Amino acid sequence: MAPNLEPFFKQVDTLSESFIERLRKAVAIPSISAEDDRRKDVVRMGQFLASELESLGAEVQQRPLGKQPGKEHLELPPVVIARYGSDVNKRTILVYGHYDVQPAGIEDGWATDPFKLTVDEKGRMYGRGSTDDKGPVLGWLNAIEAHQKAGVDFPVNLLCCFEGMEEYGSEGLDDFINDEAQKFFKDADAVCISDNYWLGTEKPCLTYGLRGCNYYSVAVSGPGQDLHSGVFGGTAQEPMTDLVRLLSTLVNTDGQILIPGINDLVAPITEEEKKLYAPISFTMANLHESLGSKTTIHPDKERTLMARWRFPSLSIHGIEGAFSAPGAKTVIPAKVTGKFSIRTVPDMDSATVTDLVHRHLTSEFAKLASKNTLDVSLQHDGKWWVASPRHWNFSAAAKAVKEVFGVEPDMTREGGSIPVTITFEQATGKNVLLLPMGSSTDAAHSINEKLDRRNYIEGTKLLGAYLHYVAEEPMSE
Amino acid sequence: MAPNLEPFFKQVDTLSESFIERLRKAVAIPSISAEDDRRKDVVRMGQFLASELESLGAEVQQRPLGKQPGKEHLELPPVVIARYGSDVNKRTILVYGHYDVQPAGIEDGWATDPFKLTVDEKGRMYGRGSTDDKGPVLGWLNAIEAHQKAGVDFPVNLLCCFEGMEEYGSEGLDDFINDEAQKFFKDADAVCISDNYWLGTEKPCLTYGLRGCNYYSVAVSGPGQDLHSGVFGGTAQEPMTDLVRLLSTLVNTDGQILIPGINDLVAPITEEEKKLYAPISFTMANLHESLGSKTTIHPDKERTLMARWRFPSLSIHGIEGAFSAPGAKTVIPAKVTGKFSIRTVPDMDSATVTDLVHRHLTSEFAKLASKNTLDVSLQHDGKWWVASPRHWNFSAAAKAVKEVFGVEPDMTREGGSIPVTITFEQATGKNVLLLPMGSSTDAAHSINEKLDRRNYIEGTKLLGAYLHYVAEEPMSE
Ligand SMILES: [Zn+2]
Ligand SMILES: [Zn+2]
Ligand SMILES: [Zn+2]
Ligand SMILES: [Zn+2]
Repeated sequence: MAPNLEPFFKQVDTLSESFIERLRKAVAIPSISAEDDRRKDVVRMGQFLASELESLGAEVQQRPLGKQPGKEHLELPPVVIARYGSDVNKRTILVYGHYDVQPAGIEDGWATDPFKLTVDEKGRMYGRGSTDDKGPVLGWLNAIEAHQKAGVDFPVNLLCCFEGMEEYGSEGLDDFINDEAQKFFKDADAVCISDNYWLGTEKPCLTYGLRGCNYYSVAVSGPGQDLHSGVFGGTAQEPMTDLVRLLSTLVNTDGQILIPGINDLVAPITEEEKKLYAPISFTMANLHESLGSKTTIHPDKERTLMARWRFPSLSIHGIEGAFSAPGAKTVIPAKVTGKFSIRTVPDMDSATVTDLVHRHLTSEFAKLASKNTLDVSLQHDGKWWVASPRHWNFSAAAKAVKEVFGVEPDMTREGGSIPVTITFEQATGKNVLLLPMGSSTDAAHSINEKLDRRNYIEGTKLLGAYLHYVAEEPMSE
Repeated sequence: MAPNLEPFFKQVDTLSESFIERLRKAVAIPSISAEDDRRKDVVRMGQFLASELESLGAEVQQRPLGKQPGKEHLELPPVVIARYGSDVNKRTILVYGHYDVQPAGIEDGWATDPFKLTVDEKGRMYGRGSTDDKGPVLGWLNAIEAHQKAGVDFPVNLLCCFEGMEEYGSEGLDDFINDEAQKFFKDADAVCISDNYWLGTEKPCLTYGLRGCNYYSVAVSGPGQDLHSGVFGGTAQEPMTDLVRLLSTLVNTDGQILIPGINDLVAPITEEEKKLYAPISFTMANLHESLGSKTTIHPDKERTLMARWRFPSLSIHGIEGAFSAPGAKTVIPAKVTGKFSIRTVPDMDSATVTDLVHRHLTSEFAKLASKNTLDVSLQHDGKWWVASPRHWNFSAAAKAVKEVFGVEPDMTREGGSIPVTITFEQATGKNVLLLPMGSSTDAAHSINEKLDRRNYIEGTKLLGAYLHYVAEEPMSE
């Protein structure tokens, strides 16, 4: 039975200017988590959120996370947690977002002051944090306010978890979530995260998968110190020579991973899965535009999206210890460390991947018969994540998309990782839905970050509608 | 007929403390050519040299070189040129040295103040510029003074060319030498440069060859901007993947250049040349010590020295545009530029080498079937140089070594380049001899640079003795 959402939707439209005003206030606080000097602004932003939630009637706590590891003079910004409603007859939905932002300065090339929300004639609202992730976070608050002012009963109990360190590794958050899973978050029936983006600009999506990432260092060392190539060239085995030969064995121009065994770990494509790709709103022209070139690997949409989402990839990021500046320097570097990462997908097990990487590089290095020393290490890993797009949490969201935007959402995955997704899934044991508000052109993490007015206002409707549908969706899976 | 050098040698011993005092005064002037703030000290050092030469009776000029290219607010330090003697019955010898030094600061790890000459109990005289190149430059002045005080007639007319920008690319010097070749330098019968080092610590050497250097950039570009590997990994062709594959085709672990045709350009070894290697005072243990490891290519001295001096080598120096910092960054760089250089030897022609490099990289890139863009360019080249070690300039120097040190000198080449050597050879059309004063352990360009008292004092005798022998050596070749 479809809920009657009209009064709520109307109220959102009525309040739209005040919602934009709320976003303006939030963007004005430069809550950059990576910069020590801005820590006070991050804290101020948490305080702003807490006040807004309190004035909406939520029960709010600002929970300290202790000192920042490696920067013991800095207190981590608090996690702002809130409960809105505690009706045992309603379902409880846990939502996550972050109130810190990426660094930004007008000198980076912004067309406008990054901390002054600037709305252009097309309704593009420019400002750091507009789409990542202040807009979506405020979307939940807007939804509460519109229900109150419309006199519509809020359909669920809402639990909020808003952190202030997402752009700097979510320091301390995993432990906090694990600690609170059976305390503050224990009533949660499902989880919703709004911190990613539509695949394009027209059609909303629901995201059910993320690739993982295993990041490796491969170091080759030999001489006791950097050498002059005039004096030693031709007489000493050069670590850089060995390293480029090793790196050349990892992947080819068409992105095929050449490490034996890696591709065998990938789960086969099912017929059901295949069907998800055809309806997706995406074209090769979209990809060429975002890439700024036509140097793509696959000729069609399906294979491109599969390559991004459900197949592994290997990228060589760079080399530490070699000459990297402009100009010419005739150094023979004594120790060089190549950095590469493998994006992982089901059913790749991290330890198995690492074992194959070690075996491959060790065997290739042995072929070189070099006297230099090889050292391969895993710098960090993060697991892939896939949820069932048929879970009731997803089907409720799909109905909300249809209601607000009049289309079926794209069912997408992401090529990158959002580590908190797995943390919530594992800590709560509940389904996690990624329900983005912003579009592919929002330029999160770049200059001129923006959120379109349509995405913000219709997105607020979507979040509210989702709560109505998820409140009554028959529980499946 | 061997000249009677005893009175001169005795006088050098008598004056040795005052010669060390002269070096102390020179080292105290921090004439760092690379640092704008020190330009006044470079000028002061030139002034010091000019005054010393004048008080010895030389005719001295400080010749301006104009503004520093790229730093138009800075005047280049003058070239100090001098003539000592103008007897038409004597030969005229042109000597070159430089009075500027490499940067140095106690904070770099020096054990003593780099600009305070500090002599330890073993006679090691520490200080920036002690061996590179103030000691050798003052050696010529000391030789003049000792002749005067010993009442020995100076055997030649001496022309001096002392520059103040050697450690910063000898800005302006080539044009100056070419201009003066038929003017101030026109009487020169031979050239002697003292600005390199013995191969070891016990035995002097005469240097008759230098390798050249061709420095290349190989750039691969594709996307319009750097990409996130989560979003684009697996869908875009990555420039870094192509670049490491190209770099892996250049050279192998044992230093063999894999670019077709390069090795065919190398002049074959003659029997006469081969004989020069066996007597050379050098061991693999020396190499391992200077390398700080045993990661050498060749098992014996002869092949090692030939690899350093008379065979080409290829070193990969690094990559510009890729991630090069410590830590982990999941970037796909949009444009990466590999830097490598080839040390060249007779009879390698620079243009031919560049042509082979282009052909090879173009052909290897074609094999990749990549949509990315390749750009190969020569950043700079400097020609190799070889003189005949049997020229009268060299045989005179060999006799001087035998007289002062009691041994036959090692006949050496250098793996690196000293570009001014070729400039003098080509501009004057005369033979150029490299006659070093310092030893292999002097650490020029490093912290704790030093010159041994023995090298300085016996070296002053050597320079003086060389002038006597070169004054009367039968002209051959
Ligand atoms: Zn975010
Ligand atoms: Zn972000
Ligand atoms: Zn020098
Ligand atoms: Zn130098």
